[in-house]
Amino acid sequence: MNESYKIHLSEKEMPDAWYNILPELPTPLAPPLHPATGKPVTPDDLKPIFPDALIAQEMSSETWIEIPSEVKEIYKLWRPSPLHRARNLEKALGTPARIYYKNESVSPPGSHKPNTAVAQAYYNKKAGVKRLATETGAGQWGSALSFACKLFGIQCTVYMVKVSYYQKPYRRILMHVWDGEVYPSPTDRTNTGRAALAKNPDAKGSLGMAISEAVEDAATHEDTNYALGSVLNHVLLHQTVIGLEAQKQLALAEDKADIVLGCVGGGSNFGGIALPFARDKIKGKSNVELIGIEPASCPTLTKGQYRYDYGDTAGMTPLMLMHTLGHSFEPPGIHAGGLRYHGDAPVLCNLVHSGLITARAYTQNPVFEAALLFARTEGIVPAPETSHVIKGAIDEALKCKETGEEKCILFCFSGHGHFDLAVYDDYLEGKLVDYEYPEEKIAEALRDLPKFPTGI
Amino acid sequence: MNESYKIHLSEKEMPDAWYNILPELPTPLAPPLHPATGKPVTPDDLKPIFPDALIAQEMSSETWIEIPSEVKEIYKLWRPSPLHRARNLEKALGTPARIYYKNESVSPPGSHKPNTAVAQAYYNKKAGVKRLATETGAGQWGSALSFACKLFGIQCTVYMVKVSYYQKPYRRILMHVWDGEVYPSPTDRTNTGRAALAKNPDAKGSLGMAISEAVEDAATHEDTNYALGSVLNHVLLHQTVIGLEAQKQLALAEDKADIVLGCVGGGSNFGGIALPFARDKIKGKSNVELIGIEPASCPTLTKGQYRYDYGDTAGMTPLMLMHTLGHSFEPPGIHAGGLRYHGDAPVLCNLVHSGLITARAYTQNPVFEAALLFARTEGIVPAPETSHVIKGAIDEALKCKETGEEKCILFCFSGHGHFDLAVYDDYLEGKLVDYEYPEEKIAEALRDLPKFPTGI
Repeated sequence: MNESYKIHLSEKEMPDAWYNILPELPTPLAPPLHPATGKPVTPDDLKPIFPDALIAQEMSSETWIEIPSEVKEIYKLWRPSPLHRARNLEKALGTPARIYYKNESVSPPGSHKPNTAVAQAYYNKKAGVKRLATETGAGQWGSALSFACKLFGIQCTVYMVKVSYYQKPYRRILMHVWDGEVYPSPTDRTNTGRAALAKNPDAKGSLGMAISEAVEDAATHEDTNYALGSVLNHVLLHQTVIGLEAQKQLALAEDKADIVLGCVGGGSNFGGIALPFARDKIKGKSNVELIGIEPASCPTLTKGQYRYDYGDTAGMTPLMLMHTLGHSFEPPGIHAGGLRYHGDAPVLCNLVHSGLITARAYTQNPVFEAALLFARTEGIVPAPETSHVIKGAIDEALKCKETGEEKCILFCFSGHGHFDLAVYDDYLEGKLVDYEYPEEKIAEALRDLPKFPTGI
Repeated sequence: MNESYKIHLSEKEMPDAWYNILPELPTPLAPPLHPATGKPVTPDDLKPIFPDALIAQEMSSETWIEIPSEVKEIYKLWRPSPLHRARNLEKALGTPARIYYKNESVSPPGSHKPNTAVAQAYYNKKAGVKRLATETGAGQWGSALSFACKLFGIQCTVYMVKVSYYQKPYRRILMHVWDGEVYPSPTDRTNTGRAALAKNPDAKGSLGMAISEAVEDAATHEDTNYALGSVLNHVLLHQTVIGLEAQKQLALAEDKADIVLGCVGGGSNFGGIALPFARDKIKGKSNVELIGIEPASCPTLTKGQYRYDYGDTAGMTPLMLMHTLGHSFEPPGIHAGGLRYHGDAPVLCNLVHSGLITARAYTQNPVFEAALLFARTEGIVPAPETSHVIKGAIDEALKCKETGEEKCILFCFSGHGHFDLAVYDDYLEGKLVDYEYPEEKIAEALRDLPKFPTGI
């Protein structure tokens, strides 16, 4: 057995291709529907905002899609990311389980987000696009895309939810350091923004509003495209580099995962680590348990309905078949900003629906108790989002302690908490509230949504 | 030639011993002098605040001192740290030079500081000490020691300069995350602090005051010792793990350093990377240039006088032979808080005095211009301190561009700037002032200091 704390791959051992699960799903993925016609979206519908290469990936039937060498060169600034064996955490828990975490916090922006940001910037640059527009809530995605655009020499415009723009200045500064232009949304740069400001000059903004502004910016400027940091098939595709590396690293450690976990907001880090393992499961080669962890305040996979819904609050994006709390869902003020999406990646929802993936929800206080134990044993301070999966992994390890099972537990350490320390202060001072989103509100939010057959 | 961006060592290749330069210095190190008697300090003088093992290391004549396995186990959470080849930066500069940086920002507290914090916590724990007291300015050292103490199960008390305590809440929270207790200094916990508060209840504090409080706390409590994060011989000793690893990594890259640089505050990260290379130079095996980079606002090595001076503002610590601006030096409000010390490690000063090391000073704006170029090519956002050495390395690479020389440049990337982003905002908004500390003020500060012969 390997005695190391960290398992490194050399840059040459980085995967040459991303894994595309679409052609191997046990149930085919239902297509996205056009919001105006209710008909399946065509590639042409997406051309105003995405380059052809990404549209092709979104619908590809190839199992493996080569990672371009230009993307790999940028990945090499921090990839392959290390796989850590959490020996100190195991000792503190007294568990016979082996706990591994794939450390995506080593990227310059501090999370897994640049895995897709770099790929998206590359394909847009190659298509002659001069500028990418996007939205950001807490700032993780906006900073990752600013970083990626700078490295490929294209411009990045970020619509940042106004309340976060002023409350989280560090993330905004980080985007400026990477030369991104950042505007507090709603802005006067778009029709949507101007209409919102006319209605309420003090509007605090929302992720839905920022998405609408970014999409409008991209759709109305010839040289500008739009980029999304989660949910879509091509985003999860790019993130599979996480799971593919982890599989090689576990093999080097002469180990094999029994349980794989990730936190779930839109689903990109969990999809990234889990899909390559799901492949083995689909092919009957493994019995690995795949568990998505979400906040009880935004319990999409655990309490949401599986049906077609819009991707944004305003109902302007295509409808997707997914577990949803209703696109009018108003997230309560929890600290894990990256986990507040009303839906989830259709690919993940498909796998949950077919029973290949399970999900679990936690409230905030037990999550930060777990995060603190992690920081005090393994050292690294986890992001609030990442703290959710740590709680999940610890619970699995404690089950092993009870049963005596020596399971191998792997989770995705999606990001560090260096820009989120205020929440630790709140936790230590007992200020965090445990809140479970009420099921009645979900039913109510979905009451008026038109139903589409799931088998389109 | 190696094509990689990063050169990793396995955990087994981590050095087994730290390098102690004391017995190999071309000119023996002048002893520290007792502040009351002016006589050389004896081990007994240090016993109230340091454990025997560290006192022995402070004066050791052994060239190699074994790294205890317990310390290595903690190091393995992040060590060996990666050596990066700055290929993107080289391309942006158009230089024929090869630039490498040893990335110490990967430690949980984000800097090189835990290399010695972990060792100090270990030796104190072994000596039965229950608590360590220390001071911190901007918070780098306080967070590193809190982290190290937590991992060895001893308590950590940090006296944090009051103005930083309130201005830099993130570093304070980080210490709390690792269970350190943090007090804004001056406090009412010590005689020194109470006297200061009696004189001025609104005192903002200073590093000198915080040192005095921490030393008093340690000296007046049986179970408590003191820990210092730089300057002392044993601190530089522990940091040599940086340079020793870098030498192995350069050998793996089939390269050899022509120039080694580090930023200098108290001297621990520069000493850490440079001393193993100084050894080769002393032994006539290499002609490597060793360059310390400091801020023009605190030009210790470039403009300070080489003479005995106190280590602290109050004149309570032993006198050390070093380059000094005078212990009453009041650092101007520059952003690189870790580089504002009035003196420097006696070992480094000894080597500067004997011509083995040179030094250079820069003002703030060119330093942050360099930091921004680094962040926009290599990705990682450097700490303000680290930004100084980046400017130095870039200047050496640009010289090579002029001369066509293909030099190998190595520098210590001492820490990331995740907790210092406000200074980037100030730089981008043109608010940083370039300030050079005037020589007259140095002469004045040193006028009344008693002179001791340097050859004691």
